[in-house]
Amino acid sequence: MARYKLHCFAQSGNAYKVALYLELAGLDWEPVFIDFFAGKATYSGPWRESVNSMGEVPVLEVDGVMRSQSGAILTWLADTTGHFAPPDADARYEALRWMFFDNHKFTSYLATLRFLLAFAKTGETPVTAFLRQRAKSAYGIVEAHLADRAFMLGDAPSIVDLSLAGYVFFPEETGLSIETFPALNAWRERLRALPGWKHPYELMPGHPLPDA
Amino acid sequence: MARYKLHCFAQSGNAYKVALYLELAGLDWEPVFIDFFAGKATYSGPWRESVNSMGEVPVLEVDGVMRSQSGAILTWLADTTGHFAPPDADARYEALRWMFFDNHKFTSYLATLRFLLAFAKTGETPVTAFLRQRAKSAYGIVEAHLADRAFMLGDAPSIVDLSLAGYVFFPEETGLSIETFPALNAWRERLRALPGWKHPYELMPGHPLPDA
Repeated sequence: MARYKLHCFAQSGNAYKVALYLELAGLDWEPVFIDFFAGKATYSGPWRESVNSMGEVPVLEVDGVMRSQSGAILTWLADTTGHFAPPDADARYEALRWMFFDNHKFTSYLATLRFLLAFAKTGETPVTAFLRQRAKSAYGIVEAHLADRAFMLGDAPSIVDLSLAGYVFFPEETGLSIETFPALNAWRERLRALPGWKHPYELMPGHPLPDA
Repeated sequence: MARYKLHCFAQSGNAYKVALYLELAGLDWEPVFIDFFAGKATYSGPWRESVNSMGEVPVLEVDGVMRSQSGAILTWLADTTGHFAPPDADARYEALRWMFFDNHKFTSYLATLRFLLAFAKTGETPVTAFLRQRAKSAYGIVEAHLADRAFMLGDAPSIVDLSLAGYVFFPEETGLSIETFPALNAWRERLRALPGWKHPYELMPGHPLPDA
């Protein structure tokens, strides 16, 4: 049995942040499939009580302890294994700063936009337009930061890059293309070129979805 | 000149998280007024270059270093001063977990909802309905966690409580009342009773707004 068990499903970019970390770091891990699209039962009372009261993946199960929130999990993994860790104390706060920004704006708006368009299939609405405008603004801020850096903290990839990478490889159409952000696009190619990199649909179970 | 300079304005709950920390901890601090409502000029190129590339408050200026993102600032303050710090390493990750949840969901949706209704004055739209539903869901999760705890990490208030407190004292109407969540409401009263507690409009400059 693997030491690190990741509760996840293929379409969750927040779970992908941790799956990609575990894979690139070469840790002994395995996925635990959470069938999100089978219905909200997964996220109901019993699951919340035993796994995660926040009702979300990823959850990383290690030695019987359940850890949630990708930013907290990545910080814990970096602290305990050293892989992709910020190089010093200052960089650690800089990493937190960008991971909070990611969770609030960079990942959040795009992930919700994609969910509405690709899975809830709402079509274009005032809400999708609102989310896309916010996501675009967040992309612009990371674009500016990457203009003169290979990775978010400098020359080497860190947990910040893995956090931001959550939703940038998915193929579903969102009306916001990373190709129009040259520095972000180049950064994404650098991530894709890391030894051991895998696409979320290859790394986590549950893709493709069964016909609805 | 105060050691801690907080770039802020009265209506920013994200800035209030840090202002309340500094005040309750009794640290030597002063506000630096950012006139957000005077126009986007404040957040344009020069300000982003010299203060915060993310274009947001709060920014905590200490010894010439500019720190942003309330979650990262609160973590740094707890690490360096000890006030409101999580009591051990496990609690530190638990604190991060809730602060990520706060930034992504608890604060984020309510803050944006309030901004649209009270300041952008959009009136009720599909976007405000969407944000309110998401905020309500986040409130429910914190409500359940507080059902058997005085504060988020147990008996004592911590940076997690100050993070979640960002927008819970503002008077503007959002159509989501904390009074309908008994545990959250009781928690808010415990915060209000802490020695030195002040309302955001008393603690930070810029209230009331001039007539538009």
